[in-house]
Amino acid sequence: MPSEDARSPSASAVETTHLVLPPDTNTHGTAFGGRIMEWMDIAAGIAAGRHCGGAAVTVAVDELVFRRPIRVADVVVIHASVNFAGRTSMEVGVRVEREDAKTRKLEHCLTGYFTFVAIDDAGRPQSVPALEPETEVERQRFQKAKARRQRRLTARE
Amino acid sequence: MPSEDARSPSASAVETTHLVLPPDTNTHGTAFGGRIMEWMDIAAGIAAGRHCGGAAVTVAVDELVFRRPIRVADVVVIHASVNFAGRTSMEVGVRVEREDAKTRKLEHCLTGYFTFVAIDDAGRPQSVPALEPETEVERQRFQKAKARRQRRLTARE
Amino acid sequence: MPSEDARSPSASAVETTHLVLPPDTNTHGTAFGGRIMEWMDIAAGIAAGRHCGGAAVTVAVDELVFRRPIRVADVVVIHASVNFAGRTSMEVGVRVEREDAKTRKLEHCLTGYFTFVAIDDAGRPQSVPALEPETEVERQRFQKAKARRQRRLTARE
Amino acid sequence: MPSEDARSPSASAVETTHLVLPPDTNTHGTAFGGRIMEWMDIAAGIAAGRHCGGAAVTVAVDELVFRRPIRVADVVVIHASVNFAGRTSMEVGVRVEREDAKTRKLEHCLTGYFTFVAIDDAGRPQSVPALEPETEVERQRFQKAKARRQRRLTARE
Amino acid sequence: MPSEDARSPSASAVETTHLVLPPDTNTHGTAFGGRIMEWMDIAAGIAAGRHCGGAAVTVAVDELVFRRPIRVADVVVIHASVNFAGRTSMEVGVRVEREDAKTRKLEHCLTGYFTFVAIDDAGRPQSVPALEPETEVERQRFQKAKARRQRRLTARE
Amino acid sequence: MPSEDARSPSASAVETTHLVLPPDTNTHGTAFGGRIMEWMDIAAGIAAGRHCGGAAVTVAVDELVFRRPIRVADVVVIHASVNFAGRTSMEVGVRVEREDAKTRKLEHCLTGYFTFVAIDDAGRPQSVPALEPETEVERQRFQKAKARRQRRLTARE
Repeated sequence: MPSEDARSPSASAVETTHLVLPPDTNTHGTAFGGRIMEWMDIAAGIAAGRHCGGAAVTVAVDELVFRRPIRVADVVVIHASVNFAGRTSMEVGVRVEREDAKTRKLEHCLTGYFTFVAIDDAGRPQSVPALEPETEVERQRFQKAKARRQRRLTARE
Repeated sequence: MPSEDARSPSASAVETTHLVLPPDTNTHGTAFGGRIMEWMDIAAGIAAGRHCGGAAVTVAVDELVFRRPIRVADVVVIHASVNFAGRTSMEVGVRVEREDAKTRKLEHCLTGYFTFVAIDDAGRPQSVPALEPETEVERQRFQKAKARRQRRLTARE
Repeated sequence: MPSEDARSPSASAVETTHLVLPPDTNTHGTAFGGRIMEWMDIAAGIAAGRHCGGAAVTVAVDELVFRRPIRVADVVVIHASVNFAGRTSMEVGVRVEREDAKTRKLEHCLTGYFTFVAIDDAGRPQSVPALEPETEVERQRFQKAKARRQRRLTARE
Repeated sequence: MPSEDARSPSASAVETTHLVLPPDTNTHGTAFGGRIMEWMDIAAGIAAGRHCGGAAVTVAVDELVFRRPIRVADVVVIHASVNFAGRTSMEVGVRVEREDAKTRKLEHCLTGYFTFVAIDDAGRPQSVPALEPETEVERQRFQKAKARRQRRLTARE
Repeated sequence: MPSEDARSPSASAVETTHLVLPPDTNTHGTAFGGRIMEWMDIAAGIAAGRHCGGAAVTVAVDELVFRRPIRVADVVVIHASVNFAGRTSMEVGVRVEREDAKTRKLEHCLTGYFTFVAIDDAGRPQSVPALEPETEVERQRFQKAKARRQRRLTARE
Repeated sequence: MPSEDARSPSASAVETTHLVLPPDTNTHGTAFGGRIMEWMDIAAGIAAGRHCGGAAVTVAVDELVFRRPIRVADVVVIHASVNFAGRTSMEVGVRVEREDAKTRKLEHCLTGYFTFVAIDDAGRPQSVPALEPETEVERQRFQKAKARRQRRLTARE
């Protein structure tokens, strides 16, 4: 039985939309990977902050693979939602799509997993509400995130 | 009967989310009105660009009333959708909500109506697809936008 | 007879000049409407702050009509001056001109009316000095601004 | 006798106004010297561009002395005007004043002399119109700028 | 035997230094993880561009673990150097240290591995010079990077 | 005999690397002089802050001469090191090189001398550690900086 203040992933999910401008791109018109990562981190941080109702800082980012370039004038749509919540940490899944400036077709570019820790005003970790997945997709994400977390903890030992 | 390429408002609707940072605010921690307008214009421009499948430039903004201040660390959620499409122009409605950094409660801050004109590569106005409202709310927005447009055209004569 | 601390519009008038750079423009080289509005709001806010001798926040912006596009490499000249002062609010008129990068000719692009409220350190409205128009043009602006304000107050009822 | 297209300093003079925000300052609330220099260079470049009617690039900046600190929330007013024009180069004088956020009193902070060279589309120096000082102050600035230029040319030999 | 144009890691190594300012941090004064990743990606991209003598785009980033928070007013020192070069791809190792604003002591914050692909003007992958490690440390980095690459290729199958 | 806490120039030397992007350049693709000066000031300020172990503000910049233009896509490498330390002031020498985007050849663009004063939390000048040059080059820089300082003090009288 989930605790009373357990929250669903949809309660903190974030959607955000960016227009890729010249300063976001190199001189070949391709968006900097680092700029995309920055946008992902901000969206993930808003989702984590909503879930824990306070401040949260990035502590880890899983391997990222850029499947296709993002170009100047593209619209970039980012979805972030909490996949898993531990005692003080949360894993947020972030999906990045580009929308072609001409065809307006959406294409998946990359997915990343960002881990945040909730902190209090003194910067110490503090506990976060339980996450209660509600749909079949959310339950699968929860299990996969739990497995990734186990792998990360094992790798650091 | 709508033309074959008529598009619904939902097909081009935009959601975007911002975290209010110190450079977005004055020294009292209140977001600059101009920064909020800039965010609204970008969201509206993406919606207009999606509807017309090309470039669009802002030609008018209706009276804006800021109902409550937006503060540093607030999350700002912006919804933009096309309310009306004429021959070459589109009216986009933009709703701005703030999410309190502590309570995570959403509050309506302001709504604005941005008019865009679709342009070709030489900067000349070009025709846009018809807009086909599908829900009762969308039909009401369409009628109200049409009335605002009539008022604007009258005022300029 | 004006109060002793009444101030003229010229005492707080602001002139500012911007060079339009690539990040201010879309991929067709036209300045974003939202960027121009941001520049207008900052100039208007400086004028309002000078008049009231403290902080002021944007509470309303009248209908804006962009009469001609502003392009990359243009110089943009903005004039802002207080048109009217009520008990706690001020209307600032903002005129935007572009200077063509080749011909150096100035062209009027748009005029907007920004309403600000003076606030104290706790964010509560506080009273502002009276405005004392000195020239015929300033007196006309004062009367027109007063009429716009009446219309706005009526519209909100 | 000045050439027909000789231009006065006032024809290209620039005034611009900045609000000092947190990203312009170090963690003690004092504006970065480099940020002020950047604002001076942009104002000077607009004045030079207006005088020559084309592009101009910074080639030298005289010794700068910051007489008083500029702080967050200050309004900074910058005046730039062409002091001297040679065959392809122009010296622009730039005066920076701060306006105290509380007292609204203006104080002189620094003056700098920026030398620009006019360039054509291929980046080669090109000739600029003669400068025709019209007031006594402008004539004095012209003579002093000429002397500084002579000193600079001598120093480089 | 290395090809004639083989290059050492030190020939393309990059050092860069940032001052952490308020807009780089959240409202608790901790730098955004995404901002640090952006700085790492730019440093890595310069190293990759130097090695291949042309443009390079980020295609993958290994798991990143932030070991300690970076704060406003910290100086951040970033070292990037090419660890491994394949046919068209390069792995760049990036080390991030913070320098405490008070004690000026350097502390290791995180290390990341960024993979880039060299591209030609049409955006197609193109071959890169061989990498020739010269020191024992560089040889170890080369072997470890080769192993990581093998793991990545296996994981994607 | 130097005081116990005397520090060498190398202990506070700074290297930093920038990629020149479109917003750093005018519409001819040449970097703004003011942007380069801003980068120089930040690097110099980090070196001064390291030397004095606290905050330092720019008080003077010597004549700067831009020997060659810096272009979009160039990599800019900046070296800053303390040349001289007085009672409360420090002179920092800053060398700027561009790396051609195609040939990767480094070229010297300009050198500047930035004078900083160390300040305490109330903004008052405070004393700085002695500078102890260790190499022949450092000793020459020390002597030359001392002479420049003498000239500056004389000129202001």
